[in-house]
Amino acid sequence: MTKSELVEQIKLKQSYLCVGLDTDIEKLPAGIPKNAKGVIQFNKAIIDATAPYCVGYKINTAFYESQGIQGWEAMEASLAHIPSTHFTIADAKRGDIGNTSAQYAKTFFEILPFDAITVAPYMGRDSVDPFLAYSNKFTIVLGLTSNEGSQNFQQQKLANGQFLYESVLEQVASWGTPEQMMFVVGATKANDFESIRKIIPHHFILVPGVGAQGGSLADVTHFGMNASVGLLVNASRAVIFASNQNDFAEKAAAAASEYAKEMKVLLSA
Amino acid sequence: MTKSELVEQIKLKQSYLCVGLDTDIEKLPAGIPKNAKGVIQFNKAIIDATAPYCVGYKINTAFYESQGIQGWEAMEASLAHIPSTHFTIADAKRGDIGNTSAQYAKTFFEILPFDAITVAPYMGRDSVDPFLAYSNKFTIVLGLTSNEGSQNFQQQKLANGQFLYESVLEQVASWGTPEQMMFVVGATKANDFESIRKIIPHHFILVPGVGAQGGSLADVTHFGMNASVGLLVNASRAVIFASNQNDFAEKAAAAASEYAKEMKVLLSA
Repeated sequence: MTKSELVEQIKLKQSYLCVGLDTDIEKLPAGIPKNAKGVIQFNKAIIDATAPYCVGYKINTAFYESQGIQGWEAMEASLAHIPSTHFTIADAKRGDIGNTSAQYAKTFFEILPFDAITVAPYMGRDSVDPFLAYSNKFTIVLGLTSNEGSQNFQQQKLANGQFLYESVLEQVASWGTPEQMMFVVGATKANDFESIRKIIPHHFILVPGVGAQGGSLADVTHFGMNASVGLLVNASRAVIFASNQNDFAEKAAAAASEYAKEMKVLLSA
Repeated sequence: MTKSELVEQIKLKQSYLCVGLDTDIEKLPAGIPKNAKGVIQFNKAIIDATAPYCVGYKINTAFYESQGIQGWEAMEASLAHIPSTHFTIADAKRGDIGNTSAQYAKTFFEILPFDAITVAPYMGRDSVDPFLAYSNKFTIVLGLTSNEGSQNFQQQKLANGQFLYESVLEQVASWGTPEQMMFVVGATKANDFESIRKIIPHHFILVPGVGAQGGSLADVTHFGMNASVGLLVNASRAVIFASNQNDFAEKAAAAASEYAKEMKVLLSA
């Protein structure tokens, strides 16, 4: 999916919601088997129920890898079930030296045909370039994350006066175009979106941390939106585990619909 | 394997070589099928041939993931073939928010019973802690990597006068003990080992970048060794792809043996 196709979907649906399939087998609702087959059954029901209210799905690879080979099969089956109208993200946070990053890019752009993958920037340009070599895909680089640990390094001041995350945004943005690159900025940092938008005015920002982690959708939208919306706000647990009973799909749809409603209001403001 | 058991193996063998199983199917030698079964056949032969000369194996997960489900099976089979006398590392460079890192830790410490995993520090303490919760395993955190891109962020000066990688080493070292934590420092940065050892005198350092990437074993050893040796020097391509003919195992053994001989001399110096 291209950037303009994504923007089109957002305008069509008046929603910039991404649903995170962080499908923890321990949290599967009553009646769903706590194994990889159960994950597939659950994800398919969640996707079917929430698709009208979101424009993308983010698969958190950790929850699938931890089920071994069956988990990998569940990831494939879940990805295959996502409609082509929806943007797909492998939330994998990979990054290594060039020949190794090239293998990760192959994994998540070819073997598993995601539209995008999240990438950790610590190893620098030659660790990111192999992902950018796929100009028809999106490389989503960690900028400022939503967790407390973002203070340890991301929010350290550099000698040049920037925060590390600002240097990451600025440098990485120069390595590719907004047509193939996005950044992760956590919703819990909504106040920082204003200065962040000065560094990356045109990029889409993937925003985790709304919902379970406590970020405010209104603040993120107010400070983070650009001319083409430029936001994909992710909610995982707050949507997919809205109920742990057999009304789980219905309740997930209701939770996604609530986000979409709020987004519609915010977009028209 | 505990730290003292690892040190014992190093002293027994007079080698601190780790062989990197970066098994790229495109580079498999003549006569080995270019698929996941070929990877298993190749890795078993490489492990059998090199085990006398090394104390550990590092499996680069990217090269297995890029073969999909069959690749995951090849990773399991290769890990299972490594003798219990050898330290095993999942070179996976994972790192995410707490509940997600916990899944990665489960994957590489339980589902695949590695002794250690490499972890990227960008997301900070709560992204590393779930790995450290396994006190009988090793969390190997990226410090200063061997690639050119290490200049982009790792070698940036902070406002406090440290390089970012120095702050990473110092902070991360305070989150656990040298009995459960190691750091990655690339061999191409041998001159920096002296100052690095002032920050982390007691930790093992996993050193990639000898061989194909051009780092010097003598320099690394001179500047990096501590009282319990404290080094695991990794060679991947230079050992496993020493020949692309059917003498590949023999030539891999010869390459590993050369490293081990040089290490023996360096240890006795």
